[in-house]
Amino acid sequence: MNNKIQAIQQWLNENELDVAFLSDYHTISYLTGFESDPIERILALVVFAQNDPLIFAPALEVQAVKSTGWTAPVFGYQDHENGWERLAGHITAVTPSIKRWAIEESQLTVERAKKIQTALPQVIFTADITPKIQTMRLHKDAQEIEKMHGAGRDADRAFEYGFAALADGVSELAVAAALEFETKKRGIPGMSFETLVQFGAHAAEPHGATGKTQLKRGDMALFDLGTIYEGYVSDATRTVAYGAVSDHQRLVYQTVLEAQLAAQSMVMPGMTAGELDDIARTIITKAGFGEYFVHRLGHGLGSSVHEFPQIMAGNDFILEPGMAFSIEPGIYIPGDMGVRIEDSIVLTEHGAESFTHHTKDLQIID
Amino acid sequence: MNNKIQAIQQWLNENELDVAFLSDYHTISYLTGFESDPIERILALVVFAQNDPLIFAPALEVQAVKSTGWTAPVFGYQDHENGWERLAGHITAVTPSIKRWAIEESQLTVERAKKIQTALPQVIFTADITPKIQTMRLHKDAQEIEKMHGAGRDADRAFEYGFAALADGVSELAVAAALEFETKKRGIPGMSFETLVQFGAHAAEPHGATGKTQLKRGDMALFDLGTIYEGYVSDATRTVAYGAVSDHQRLVYQTVLEAQLAAQSMVMPGMTAGELDDIARTIITKAGFGEYFVHRLGHGLGSSVHEFPQIMAGNDFILEPGMAFSIEPGIYIPGDMGVRIEDSIVLTEHGAESFTHHTKDLQIID
Repeated sequence: MNNKIQAIQQWLNENELDVAFLSDYHTISYLTGFESDPIERILALVVFAQNDPLIFAPALEVQAVKSTGWTAPVFGYQDHENGWERLAGHITAVTPSIKRWAIEESQLTVERAKKIQTALPQVIFTADITPKIQTMRLHKDAQEIEKMHGAGRDADRAFEYGFAALADGVSELAVAAALEFETKKRGIPGMSFETLVQFGAHAAEPHGATGKTQLKRGDMALFDLGTIYEGYVSDATRTVAYGAVSDHQRLVYQTVLEAQLAAQSMVMPGMTAGELDDIARTIITKAGFGEYFVHRLGHGLGSSVHEFPQIMAGNDFILEPGMAFSIEPGIYIPGDMGVRIEDSIVLTEHGAESFTHHTKDLQIID
Repeated sequence: MNNKIQAIQQWLNENELDVAFLSDYHTISYLTGFESDPIERILALVVFAQNDPLIFAPALEVQAVKSTGWTAPVFGYQDHENGWERLAGHITAVTPSIKRWAIEESQLTVERAKKIQTALPQVIFTADITPKIQTMRLHKDAQEIEKMHGAGRDADRAFEYGFAALADGVSELAVAAALEFETKKRGIPGMSFETLVQFGAHAAEPHGATGKTQLKRGDMALFDLGTIYEGYVSDATRTVAYGAVSDHQRLVYQTVLEAQLAAQSMVMPGMTAGELDDIARTIITKAGFGEYFVHRLGHGLGSSVHEFPQIMAGNDFILEPGMAFSIEPGIYIPGDMGVRIEDSIVLTEHGAESFTHHTKDLQIID
């Protein structure tokens, strides 16, 4: 059994719990190395306080679980079987001591909680294991950090493929497609999320989608992308000018850049997430663009793109070495333009260490 | 207010409920036309028995909600605000009669249910609205069916782009990348899921991922893909031979094809989902490959790729006109080969009407 699962067992014993029922596939991937989204099927890692863990999975995934090196029991079920009853049978066969459960309240649905309760009426949902998993995941070890550097290197290359695709009249979708094509062609197994490419005023919708907007000279082009490297992700954003840049665009860009650089250079262990957000937000507000910075400064990431902690105003969470998160201020002026600049970093004793290194100086692509 | 939301209001009144709390973004997209995955943020459509509905969304989505033509209230919240308290305030401002709620138990997490309960202690989760939504969604109207035909046409074209990329030594990832690139380049906004390309023995892992396996002559190549057309999806699978085909491969292919064609030509209103699964499964079992058909025959689809109903053994659900689902038998022989053939269809009074039309005859690509 690996160290991470042992840590869960220890936590169960400390909290006088019998069973940890882990059902978020990102958690399972983090704890076991087996990564698969079961969609509406059942996938669960069951950790017992006193016995070996087990994995319960769709029958067609059992081989894949074993091939990751999982040596504890793994049980499959077929679509036509009652999975919850099968699972209950496997759990009670391990031990009769299964009363006090920890579940992932942030992931388990009300429906599934009821199904567990029906199949195992003796179970009491005693604790939420989400904070424990978040705490484990947010302290990255050396191996995890190395993988995130790998993902960052790939993201740096992906920007280049995207910039090279910029041309008069090209659509956001065509540029995103070219970027992803060039990236995957070089053996990078996948993007960590749908690549976002936005031109001109369309970039003022900070969570809009890549669309049919066509590029024209004098637009700025925003690229928000990420790659996956051995199960760990990158997430980075660059905004470039196409052909020419106005004084107004330059002012907005430099404001975002100043905010991003300030936050990234000043972040230190002991600071709160809210204080870090404030560093960037104050710069943007003083420059008169505060109302246009409509989202938090950043978010944790690791084996998935959105993890704990949230870097946002009012969050008293204290940042510690080994935590990895994005720093991504932006200014979005409706009907006009949008700029976001983002690196994801890991915090060390000495400050931020970035996973991406592509220049953040204003680039004019021609 | 549109017909669908009126139908929910009527259902609330029939069941003496006060509020429907809809939080699955696919449901919200289905009911309002506004499509956005809020990830860990809050997005909710609140339908009242006696008052106009409201949408509660991240601040940065409010404009996008309005631009879909939504005329009832929409409220935004910022990341640093307590979203659940804000939401509770907007709900109680509409009406004090908010005791009996219907929630989407299949989507709402235990954590969020607790947060609602904290912000609105008077609420009682009285009913699960999931079955009602599923019933509404599974009967497609003429407009929805037209969009699904559009998605099917795009999927037919996508197969061609994939087949054209087959070559000695090419990797699954490179073929999938080329297929998606050519598809998106033609303005198709996105795939409905990550394209699956598997060669040779790798295709024996029915839910494996596109990987680094390289194509060689004599392999079969499996393509499972889907596209999105005006919010509706396609899902189809073709398996082709590369360069040459053995008698064994041909036998396996013809068995799957016979099963697929039988199910698709025999499906009729009034049949159960289990009976339809049985038609295909019996053919594969009689041919001696029953143990290698390890998944259900199909699944519903519409505005998302996995909807109600499940076409699987033992499911007594009765199929009716207007329901859309996949028919996708397969044979997966570990270490050897895998074949799956899939069309998605809508059931009419006269039987299946397929959204995809690419030939299912065995093709040898050279």
